[in-house]
Amino acid sequence: MNRVQEQIEKHIHALSKFTSTPQKGVTRLTYSNEDLQARNYIKKTMKEYGLNVWEDGFGNIFGKLEGTLKNAPSVLIGSHFDSVPNGGAYDGPAGVVAGLEVASLFSKNKLTPKYPLEIVALVEEEGARFGGGLMGSRGMVGLLSEEDFKNLKDKDGLSTEEEMEKIGLNTSLPKVRDPKTMKAFLELHIEQGPILEEKNIPIGVVEAIVGLTQLEVTVKGQAGHAGTTPMDRRSDALVTAAKILAQLSDLAIDEGEGTVITAGRLNVFPNGANIIPEKTVFTVDIRSGKEENVRNVIRKTKELVQSYSENGIHTSIEQLLYIQPKALNKDIRSLLKQQSSQLEIPYCSINSGAGHDAMVFSDFTDVGMIFVPSKDGLSHCPEEWSDSRHLANAVQILYEAAKNLTEVDSN
Amino acid sequence: MNRVQEQIEKHIHALSKFTSTPQKGVTRLTYSNEDLQARNYIKKTMKEYGLNVWEDGFGNIFGKLEGTLKNAPSVLIGSHFDSVPNGGAYDGPAGVVAGLEVASLFSKNKLTPKYPLEIVALVEEEGARFGGGLMGSRGMVGLLSEEDFKNLKDKDGLSTEEEMEKIGLNTSLPKVRDPKTMKAFLELHIEQGPILEEKNIPIGVVEAIVGLTQLEVTVKGQAGHAGTTPMDRRSDALVTAAKILAQLSDLAIDEGEGTVITAGRLNVFPNGANIIPEKTVFTVDIRSGKEENVRNVIRKTKELVQSYSENGIHTSIEQLLYIQPKALNKDIRSLLKQQSSQLEIPYCSINSGAGHDAMVFSDFTDVGMIFVPSKDGLSHCPEEWSDSRHLANAVQILYEAAKNLTEVDSN
Repeated sequence: MNRVQEQIEKHIHALSKFTSTPQKGVTRLTYSNEDLQARNYIKKTMKEYGLNVWEDGFGNIFGKLEGTLKNAPSVLIGSHFDSVPNGGAYDGPAGVVAGLEVASLFSKNKLTPKYPLEIVALVEEEGARFGGGLMGSRGMVGLLSEEDFKNLKDKDGLSTEEEMEKIGLNTSLPKVRDPKTMKAFLELHIEQGPILEEKNIPIGVVEAIVGLTQLEVTVKGQAGHAGTTPMDRRSDALVTAAKILAQLSDLAIDEGEGTVITAGRLNVFPNGANIIPEKTVFTVDIRSGKEENVRNVIRKTKELVQSYSENGIHTSIEQLLYIQPKALNKDIRSLLKQQSSQLEIPYCSINSGAGHDAMVFSDFTDVGMIFVPSKDGLSHCPEEWSDSRHLANAVQILYEAAKNLTEVDSN
Repeated sequence: MNRVQEQIEKHIHALSKFTSTPQKGVTRLTYSNEDLQARNYIKKTMKEYGLNVWEDGFGNIFGKLEGTLKNAPSVLIGSHFDSVPNGGAYDGPAGVVAGLEVASLFSKNKLTPKYPLEIVALVEEEGARFGGGLMGSRGMVGLLSEEDFKNLKDKDGLSTEEEMEKIGLNTSLPKVRDPKTMKAFLELHIEQGPILEEKNIPIGVVEAIVGLTQLEVTVKGQAGHAGTTPMDRRSDALVTAAKILAQLSDLAIDEGEGTVITAGRLNVFPNGANIIPEKTVFTVDIRSGKEENVRNVIRKTKELVQSYSENGIHTSIEQLLYIQPKALNKDIRSLLKQQSSQLEIPYCSINSGAGHDAMVFSDFTDVGMIFVPSKDGLSHCPEEWSDSRHLANAVQILYEAAKNLTEVDSN
């Protein structure tokens, strides 16, 4: 095992310990105590690697190696460090750790870039705490207003800024970043799907990221006693939600072309065994590489949900998130493929079925992204695993690409 | 408004303030701070009414007026004082308050019974915190073992005894009560259904209580990323649960004869918007006046759930509660009807669609129960309301019945 691979394993292992669900996967919600522990680890490592460290007003973490050019834009490398509930150790942290090890190689080899190199660790990509997702990156590029940010609340009604303050983050630090300060953004991520493993190829160079939407459906009925309300007098919000949910999958299957639909979160109110449910709220996540597919399934979902607004039931839909499919920068794609070839690491082109912070940055700077295989295609679960040899390969490719993009003096 | 009616309104209003969801109905979970507040109010009132007050090892409250016979069994009057989440002010407390006002009339009229009169306020009838329901009464009569009681946990994993201690209850007090110490149990309850209101009759004398069961269904699938797992590779625990839930109502409707079925509580794990659900757990509550109906629907529910154990999905069912339909004591039914007639209060016979503590006691002592009308038939919701005039009528009937059963000297 080479040094890079060892360091990757060490960091991934260390970060995986900052979880609120030990033995049941990684649960690291944004601004939680586990966020603070991971944050401190990342900042400490950045400092050890000779980077100049700071945070912004969202709690995103930056570690910068200055370049020789004055006021020049940075080449950013990184990913997010939050997780879904009971998720894995790689989704997010793998990309942060890869960035750290690129910086370590710059430091070890005493490289002086013209353009600064910045390692980035972003908050709330998953949206598992405050909803919607991609919060850190959307905030940074100004796609999330300061007011909207302040109004975000978690399921217990706690606001972003309250929770930032609890772990000692400064909410008054600058939030939006001028795109002119960014020359490029590179992200390594685990594939979270079965393709690379099936093809037995260690690197995927991402061509495009799927479009996605997230809807929230609310079904309102009438509460009542489970024993004394005759069946024909009920407006049961869970029965209606179930009828909708039982038909959702077919909307994506009928659309085809890899379109997927998922109801991942559902809450029943008041949720007592002997009370007829008064309200059911659930999310609907729709994704496809073709925007037309996403739009068609949104329309059909709305029609389906609307058709159940009858017999004392009121249904409504809110769109929490809409992101178009994004093709990534052609020059950076070429650069990543070229570096893979030179390092004799096999690669293929791939589309990303998941949304990523890279997608958000792609409207503001040149973006490149590489994938490594996921064991059994699994992600967002404790079994999530990627081989550190593949991650070390990816670090080598990113290191070479970063040298090129930061214009390291190659004497 | 007479004095009894005034006192009823005062007590109901006071108890309704002990809620963790102000302005959103009464939420008073067993052993919560609101339980403690209500408990103190009830104990204080019992003492003011000259009763000798104590609690048992479950936290059930007793207030006793001694009789002249030594070691004679008591005539108990009461109900429960816990609530469902976001429930109403009457389900439970109405019966406790009626008991208190019967004791007040004994005190005011300086009556000396032969047999003791005991006012009872029971915990966890609803099962909203520790599941299963009827905990206080089942515990008292020995249907819930001390070990099973200790092992009960709420949704946050907190145990019964831990939570009792937090509000200062003594867990080492006696738990099971010898049935020989009980001569009769009388309970007033709101109807929680539309029948008395529709008939415009102020009192229902309960003939029988429906049989009921509570099942817990667990559907296990495989978690995965919402964007990267193709539709044909999914084992989605919520989609499967929805297909089951969408068909449940028909099982009760097809059975007929007033059979009802309700899935009131459902939880999804891990419950993140971009994660395919790994596990869904929901309750199924089935009730009917005929035991055969309950058994048929249990069997059909099991068959339905079992039929979805395929394609990476594993389903299982646990029976949390099974209670046979119960006919109440014939002599006490006659006594209650006779007292209503003498007081010129119109009454009718009625079955109870809800389970009640009275049902549990009916295997151990002579039990009688009366209902008062529920506005719009609603219960287990903030709109739950019953007229204090009807409650005052019920107190008069219970007072006369209690005088008879305790054999008050009628000089």
